[in-house]
Amino acid sequence: GFQWQAQGRTVQGVLETAIQQVSQAPARVSGSGRTDTGVHAAGQVIGFRTAWRHSLADLQRALNAVLPGDAAVLAIGPADPTWHPRFSATRRYYRYTVLNQPWRSPLERRYAHLVTQPLNLEAMQAAAGLLVGVHDFASFGQPTQGNCTVRELFSAEWQRDGSRFHVDVVGSGVLRGMVRCLAGTLLQVGTGVWEIDRVAVLLEARNRALAPPPAPACGLCLMRVDYE
Amino acid sequence: GFQWQAQGRTVQGVLETAIQQVSQAPARVSGSGRTDTGVHAAGQVIGFRTAWRHSLADLQRALNAVLPGDAAVLAIGPADPTWHPRFSATRRYYRYTVLNQPWRSPLERRYAHLVTQPLNLEAMQAAAGLLVGVHDFASFGQPTQGNCTVRELFSAEWQRDGSRFHVDVVGSGVLRGMVRCLAGTLLQVGTGVWEIDRVAVLLEARNRALAPPPAPACGLCLMRVDYE
Repeated sequence: GFQWQAQGRTVQGVLETAIQQVSQAPARVSGSGRTDTGVHAAGQVIGFRTAWRHSLADLQRALNAVLPGDAAVLAIGPADPTWHPRFSATRRYYRYTVLNQPWRSPLERRYAHLVTQPLNLEAMQAAAGLLVGVHDFASFGQPTQGNCTVRELFSAEWQRDGSRFHVDVVGSGVLRGMVRCLAGTLLQVGTGVWEIDRVAVLLEARNRALAPPPAPACGLCLMRVDYE
Repeated sequence: GFQWQAQGRTVQGVLETAIQQVSQAPARVSGSGRTDTGVHAAGQVIGFRTAWRHSLADLQRALNAVLPGDAAVLAIGPADPTWHPRFSATRRYYRYTVLNQPWRSPLERRYAHLVTQPLNLEAMQAAAGLLVGVHDFASFGQPTQGNCTVRELFSAEWQRDGSRFHVDVVGSGVLRGMVRCLAGTLLQVGTGVWEIDRVAVLLEARNRALAPPPAPACGLCLMRVDYE
């Protein structure tokens, strides 16, 4: 989970602790978006202010030296004071990974959702196509701020590599729980439980209660965030 | 780690517990080979005797139901009484994975060894080629039984996918620690610390003391075992 909590370890918490350790001053970190517990991030972008007087490369080295092994600063750069990791983001790339085989894979269990029924890739791709574009995604998630539930989905592409399926979802922004809900919906189609048309009906309904359960957090990864 | 220990969780231990749970009788498991602590196996093969009276599919389901999440029975079949997972094996496939980038990757830290210096793929491949064939690998490991250190390496092929490098090592059998030691040696060449020729000298020397440190366990995975 990204967001700071009074109890329990969070991405925001370990980052703020690390920045405080190296800069000797309290820090407040903002992220490009909040990921739920169990969701991974290969390309989360964060922002913070610091009075660090040495080079940025030194700051990156210092942070990686104190961060726990399951977090790392992959790149670092200066930012304009008007830049915000969340509000300045123009595109967010998410990948939802499904392992489609009869038995769990111990080596992938934290990074892929196991589906044991056969999956129809073409049906899932056709359903994904219905969601691309500017839509009111109220059926799929809740806004973290305000009450606008309109988002633009630039693309949603399924790919298969043997028993591994993944869908790459690229959007202007996503509602809270939206990618997992999209994945859960597409998997209903993939397993033949839902007809493709039902996805269009769900989108049109703008009613969270009609959506299937979200796909589990383990399969989701925030891959990348683009800025202008 | 594969082998049963009085203290600590092992692959053999969790399998024997699971078999005992489902069959209501003590079981002793043999593996195709022992993997060290931290080494992964995507295709370990084990053998055991049981008085199970139902179908093999039922046995597989029952075992997967009681095994912990980090172990799974991917396939099950009957075996001839003369078959042994270790002694009947004809080929073993290992993969050693290296992540070659400046910073650790939290999502891969348990499955790949991080090397931050640039790696020369061509040099590593040339050095790997020197090791293919029937050789006395005494410089690279110790036999688990007897004192013959001659093994046949069928192939050792490096592949690169972006910042991920892996070497697929296929052999008749391997000495204890051998694949990690081969990987460690090839990485000395890849980082330019060793000249390629030094690998031939090491092989010829049959002296464990001349070998570089073994590459860390996390990068190694037993992929598959073949039988006649």
